[in-house]
Amino acid sequence: MTVTSDVVGEVLQANGDYAAGFNKGALPMPPARRFAVVTCMDARIVPSKVFGLEEGDAHVIRNAGGLASDDALRSLVISHTLLGTQEAIVVGHTDCGMLTFTNDAIHAKLHDDLGADASDTDFLPFTDVEAAVRESVAKIAQTPLLPDTYTARGYVYEVESGRLREVV
Amino acid sequence: MTVTSDVVGEVLQANGDYAAGFNKGALPMPPARRFAVVTCMDARIVPSKVFGLEEGDAHVIRNAGGLASDDALRSLVISHTLLGTQEAIVVGHTDCGMLTFTNDAIHAKLHDDLGADASDTDFLPFTDVEAAVRESVAKIAQTPLLPDTYTARGYVYEVESGRLREVV
Repeated sequence: MTVTSDVVGEVLQANGDYAAGFNKGALPMPPARRFAVVTCMDARIVPSKVFGLEEGDAHVIRNAGGLASDDALRSLVISHTLLGTQEAIVVGHTDCGMLTFTNDAIHAKLHDDLGADASDTDFLPFTDVEAAVRESVAKIAQTPLLPDTYTARGYVYEVESGRLREVV
Repeated sequence: MTVTSDVVGEVLQANGDYAAGFNKGALPMPPARRFAVVTCMDARIVPSKVFGLEEGDAHVIRNAGGLASDDALRSLVISHTLLGTQEAIVVGHTDCGMLTFTNDAIHAKLHDDLGADASDTDFLPFTDVEAAVRESVAKIAQTPLLPDTYTARGYVYEVESGRLREVV
């Protein structure tokens, strides 16, 4: 059996268990607690536990770095405009993979590994997680596609302790 | 107290409880189970429960629609190239907000609400969730920035039942 089918099988087994005990009924589409989290894809972050989220509570947007990328802003604008969220919490984290490479380095690796030319892709690495969080919060504050009443706060999650530390 | 401070206070309270019981130690950065999930930001999806994920298991990428957007592909390439994941599971869901609007409609609403010109933003709405999942899986399969050995599977999550249904 391949690694692929192992993972898929395990996921489907876990899902069967969850579905068997599912008792949420038909929850509404708009998030009940009217906020969105933007955080990193990092495997060590489990937002439901870190932020105390139940099914139906909040939108969760995740990407490499937890950045207010153009795609995260697209998601936040949909979240607010169509589904009523009023604030965002942006969460970077310690020991982030985005601190470990440069665009030149990943471009070279993709060329070496795959013969691929990724030179037109900005992978958005950064050297200071707090600065990255501040920049993301500023982008959310400044976009003309969210109202002035929409608010954003920034935190760093410590993967070593499970604790959130305020940035902005 | 404003809505904002209520939410932030609740999140920090929940985080304090989580951190107080935190016993994960220093987990490694690469996902232990070597896979990534791409799914929607929808509040009703709690990936740790739906897919059976513990801290450290898998990357989770989320955006409006659960699409293999350019930013999700950026994240998947980092996930594989630098952190060793070998497969992706793409998960759309029933009752998705992306089924409820068109670009013209959200552009008009942003103009009416905020006087904003969003006409150059594609919000990536779709009319068929299974087709959207298939398209995302195909994009992952076709990108030259992931190797041929990297695999992707697609599912629809039923928010009414908690169950995953295979698409591709």
